[in-house]
Amino acid sequence: MTSIAPDAAARLIAEIRFDANGLVPCIAQQHDTGEVLMMAWMNADSVAETLTTGRVCYWSRSRNRLWRKGETSGQQQRLIDLRVDCDGDTLLALVDQDGVACHTGRHNCFFHALRDGQVTTIADPLVDPKTLYGA
Amino acid sequence: MTSIAPDAAARLIAEIRFDANGLVPCIAQQHDTGEVLMMAWMNADSVAETLTTGRVCYWSRSRNRLWRKGETSGQQQRLIDLRVDCDGDTLLALVDQDGVACHTGRHNCFFHALRDGQVTTIADPLVDPKTLYGA
Repeated sequence: MTSIAPDAAARLIAEIRFDANGLVPCIAQQHDTGEVLMMAWMNADSVAETLTTGRVCYWSRSRNRLWRKGETSGQQQRLIDLRVDCDGDTLLALVDQDGVACHTGRHNCFFHALRDGQVTTIADPLVDPKTLYGA
Repeated sequence: MTSIAPDAAARLIAEIRFDANGLVPCIAQQHDTGEVLMMAWMNADSVAETLTTGRVCYWSRSRNRLWRKGETSGQQQRLIDLRVDCDGDTLLALVDQDGVACHTGRHNCFFHALRDGQVTTIADPLVDPKTLYGA
């Protein structure tokens, strides 16, 4: 996928059941390895921008604005395909991740798990976050 | 994973930042193929039950009760690993899915996508939902 025409994007957006805050969760999955990278939120504007530009754009709930993934860190996500689930309330974005997805410098965000009964960090950073975001 | 002791489950639950409704989104991924099957919600009780029984249990927002995946359809999810993301507000469950994950009889829930500018169903049911849930 490079980019989708606005009218086609609008047709997909019409299938989405946004929540009371106008948001929908979007899972980002690396298209070729199947690795689940992260989950973040989108509003209609961010879905439209993601489809029409081919670069994944979320809605930052903490900053209350569009969050063009990689805008600071350079770790962008190119959109390969955007899928809507059976009841329209969750999205799955197949992406090609530049570098790392997680703000901690890890490739994906899901690195806390139980091992031998203890909460354990199961992946190491591949990049120092200071090199992504500054000191 | 078979089952986790309650005290270890409590340690993982303590890492989770549940939302204002006491819920957290949980992505279910088939552990060996990487297929993203579905996304649903959990509360602390359903996380605890999932970990201690080794069978995935969600919280049904529509029915307002624990939803033991497969309790009606038989399409259970055996838990392989449960991971918490970097900021504690999303879970990733690696599972072994019995049969199909989606109530439509499809293997996963993410089957709406754009093809040639039109919203298209990109996967067929593998099972008739009537055989899962009755007529």
